[in-house]
Formats: sequence, structure tokens, C-alpha cells
Amino acid sequence: MGGGEPHVGRVERDTVADLGPGDSVLSVVQDSGRAREVPVSEVHWHLPFSVADYVDFYSSLEHATNMGRMFRPDQEPLTPNWRHLPIGYHGRAGSVVVGGTDVRRPHGQRRAGDFGPSQKLDLELELGFVIGKASVLGEPVPVERALEHVFGAVLVNDWSARDIQAFEYVPLGPFLGKSFATSISPWVTTLDELTLAPGVEQEPEPLEHLRIANFAYDVPLAIELNGDVVSRTNARYLYWNVAQQIAHLTSNGASLRAGDLLATGTISGPGEREYGSLIELTWNDGPFLQDGDEVVLRGAPLGEVRGRIVA
Amino acid sequence: MGGGEPHVGRVERDTVADLGPGDSVLSVVQDSGRAREVPVSEVHWHLPFSVADYVDFYSSLEHATNMGRMFRPDQEPLTPNWRHLPIGYHGRAGSVVVGGTDVRRPHGQRRAGDFGPSQKLDLELELGFVIGKASVLGEPVPVERALEHVFGAVLVNDWSARDIQAFEYVPLGPFLGKSFATSISPWVTTLDELTLAPGVEQEPEPLEHLRIANFAYDVPLAIELNGDVVSRTNARYLYWNVAQQIAHLTSNGASLRAGDLLATGTISGPGEREYGSLIELTWNDGPFLQDGDEVVLRGAPLGEVRGRIVA
Repeated sequence: MGGGEPHVGRVERDTVADLGPGDSVLSVVQDSGRAREVPVSEVHWHLPFSVADYVDFYSSLEHATNMGRMFRPDQEPLTPNWRHLPIGYHGRAGSVVVGGTDVRRPHGQRRAGDFGPSQKLDLELELGFVIGKASVLGEPVPVERALEHVFGAVLVNDWSARDIQAFEYVPLGPFLGKSFATSISPWVTTLDELTLAPGVEQEPEPLEHLRIANFAYDVPLAIELNGDVVSRTNARYLYWNVAQQIAHLTSNGASLRAGDLLATGTISGPGEREYGSLIELTWNDGPFLQDGDEVVLRGAPLGEVRGRIVA
Repeated sequence: MGGGEPHVGRVERDTVADLGPGDSVLSVVQDSGRAREVPVSEVHWHLPFSVADYVDFYSSLEHATNMGRMFRPDQEPLTPNWRHLPIGYHGRAGSVVVGGTDVRRPHGQRRAGDFGPSQKLDLELELGFVIGKASVLGEPVPVERALEHVFGAVLVNDWSARDIQAFEYVPLGPFLGKSFATSISPWVTTLDELTLAPGVEQEPEPLEHLRIANFAYDVPLAIELNGDVVSRTNARYLYWNVAQQIAHLTSNGASLRAGDLLATGTISGPGEREYGSLIELTWNDGPFLQDGDEVVLRGAPLGEVRGRIVA
């Protein structure tokens, strides 16, 4: 906040209560009660915490179905594992940046032997859950206790270079198509600020370690491209919930650390104007992102995450 | 080192020079010259550095060919991208542990709806390169300057649950099949201690940003299972070198941080007793690792990485 050393603050409508010097909202437990108030518009934002491990899930049924239809048109759109576990993979923690940071168009191999700037640069609209309380290596977190580990949520733009990803991702998954930048909103909204909603029906019923009355968060979301809203959707459409994601992630003994970021994967709704990426909105015909384009993802009460493409 | 707070040390044959309190070998730049000497056998080892991002490559042509033959017998063993770029993916930094730590057999979905302990728990023999010097986000590291960023190397056992991985990995790659534990040797060997060897011929010639006279490190390696050597191979068989891996990783603008761990992927040689995993050594027939089994990977001058399987 402001110039000089970073401070930690608490956002309250249009102002930020300055809680003093610090570089992570995860290490502040209470407030002195004598905080200076700063208008939000005057704040220079930093990453609100140091990202430990970054995991990106794939928890929207509509998104996974759309991607399957586009890329594996001769097969069932959902892979056989999709309804049995919340698919996820590790992303690059070191390139998570705070909203407002410019995003350089990545270079990469778009086809065999063809290296150059991505011609299919896309956005992905996601939520991210921030772990505040670690767990112990070797001890799975029960699904019904998983939320105790969550500090709060952010908006995430998981920028994606579709051409680079398409060439690289078999058999070990996305790497350079994603690792150039991931933007998150500048503040973390605690879970108690979010509105719960019933989750969608899960069929088949999840295995015991993933079984919990399904829930979602009612967060209305919008994608704004150069000032025009190109999609409106809602986090309540997600199929897998964050408690199931945590139970799954730790079911093999892996531990959580404070600062782990668990993103939902692209959030798409059922309607054609409710998709969370340009590849879905344009059914892979483009246009994709051009140099100079500015993307703003919005979702009250999480705020916004902003990014401009530079060459 | 010893009880109480961790110290940083420098290994010299059978002793360790105690360089004083600290928790990362990456932050020690020089030596006071008045170090206390401790026998290696008396040291209680910690992780020698804090792992930032962990990337696992797939750079052994023999390993990738063997895996392709086993799992995609009706197709070309190498995917179309393999000879054009060093395939890699992000692993879980938070579950990297120091050699000597017990490894709990992970649970997971072995088939749809079938959750339980992995029945195909395997080892993977790898080297890992440790980044000591960060790079700037948005600025690719030229291949000919890549080694300036490498502090040194460790041995890596990238434990793998083959059944969990097989069910989960399409389309986004390995996740829980790998994330329960990755063991590294307790000290980092600086590059100047390693013996260079000519690299294998790369065909086709790599693209310009990956082009460098191919090299490898001549590190003779052995896998010991319950005291018996079951494989001997050498890091010189690797197809892609670490300079190319770094140039590739940063070619999209992603940055390096001090503490990044870049593992080579399983190192297999051409002979049937030179494979770097049990799945290759037994051609997927097993036996895989049993509870109580102890695995020691050795490779002078890197030392050893040890781990015992517990239920």
C-alpha cells in the first residue's frame, strides 16, 4: 500500500484500513483498532500473500464438456475420470502476479518447429481459494473439515496460450501454455463474506472421502474486454466444491501449506454467453486477445482482476 | 545439522564443515574459514533449501520410449512433440522431502470408484538441478547463459503411484500419482564437481532458442532395493540437457526463482538392466514396492537418496 515498504490492510468498501507493515495477509491475526484509513483508489497493490503451491482444478462440467467437444469430437466429451474426482494439476507459483500487472504475450512452439508469439492467447475466468492453515504431510484432510483450512477467495485469470498448450500437453499436461502469468485480484475475501448456494447434483455419488452435501458460492461473474461485457456467469455452476478439492488433493497424503492457491478451473455456465474463456465464446474461431487488449474479470464481493496484453 | 536449530554446512568427503545457523545452502556465499568439522554419520539432515517451484521433465529418450510402448502400443512410442521440446510439468513443491524420510504408501482411485492404497508404487531415478540465481519475469534466459542460474545438482526419487496416475492423468497430467512425496539427496553438489560428457545427437536439430552443443553429466547411477542393486545407468544418456530445459522453461516469459528444482525425469539407459523405474525393469508386471522396502539411489559425487515405504 502506497510507496515504500508494503503494508497489510483490510478492505472496507472504498477504503483500506492500514494494519501496518507486512507482506502477507495470512500472517495478520488481528487489528490494532487504530488503523489509518486509505482510499482504495490510492493504493498500490502487491500480491496479498506469497503463493506456496498453485493448483488449478477443472471443476466446471460445462467447461470440461465444451473443451472435450472441441478437441475430441469423436469421443465422449468428458474423460472417464471426470465425474469420479476433481481433476487438477500443478501450475507455476512463481508467475502468479497481482491484478493490474501487464501480461506479455508469450512465445512458444505453436506447431512442430514453429516458434513465435502465441496467436491464440486467451483468458480463463476462475475463483481461487487461499489456504490459511497448513495440514500435516501424510494425513489426509477429511472433507467435512476442509473449510477450516481456507482463509478466503480471490478472482483468478489463468491466462492461456491455446496454441502452445495444444502442442505441448500430451502426455504430461499444460506447462508453458499457462506458466507465463496467472493474475489474481489484489485482496482476499474471507469465506464468511461469500453467499452459499446449493451445489449441483453429483452423479454418480462421490466416493466416501469426497462425500458432502454439495455446495457452491453464489458469486455473479463478468468478463469485460476493452470495456464491453462479453460473458456473465456464476461460480454456483461449479460441479466440484472446494471441500472436495481439498479432500482429494490430500487423499494421497499430500499436505497443504499456508499460501497454497487452489483455483477452480474455468467457470462456464450452460448458456452460450455464460462461458469463461474466449475459446468457448468463439468456439475456437477467435478473435483471441490482441496486443493492447484489457481484460477485467469482476465478481462481487471479490472485486476485480485486471490485465492488459503487451507485445 | 545436529539437534536444535538447523545449520548450513559444506560436505568434504566424510565430514561436514559447519558454516553456522541457517536453513538454505543458497543463501550462504562464503565461509568463515573457522568452521567446525562434523562427521557425516552424525548429521541429522534437513532439506538443503526451500523448494520454490518444482518442475519434472521427461528428458530420457529411452524412458519416454519405454512408457509409450507400454501404454500406447498401437502408436508411435514418442509423442509428436517429444523431439521438439523438453516436455515437463509442475510437481508439488510442498511435498519434496529430504532423503531418509519415510514414504507413506498413498491412497487413491486405482480405477473408477475404487479407492485404496496404491498397488503399483514405484520409484523414479532422476537428477535435479537447483536454481541459485533468479531471472526476470518476461525475459527468457538464453540457452548459452542458462548454466549461470544453476547452483548445483541433487539426486531425486520421484516416487510414483502408477495406478493412481493412470486413472487421473488424462487430460491434464500427473497429480496425486506423484504429489505424495518426492525425495532429494541431503546436499547439493555444485556443477563444477560434476564431470561433463558429450550429449547424444539430437535429431531434428533443436530450434534456435534451444540450440547448443549437446552435453550431459557423466554420473554413474545405481538403484538399490533392499540392499540389492537392481539397475545401473548413467545421467549421460539423457537426451535434453539442463541448459535447454531452462531456455525452454523461460521461453514464454516465465521466470526462475532461487530454489526452483528442475528434475530430469526418469533416467533410463538402452539396456534392460539400465532402466530407472520398476515399471520399466518389470515391464509393468511388478513386483512394485512393498511396505518395508528400502530404496537407495546412488550416484557419485551426488551421494545418495534413501527412502523406506511405510503403510
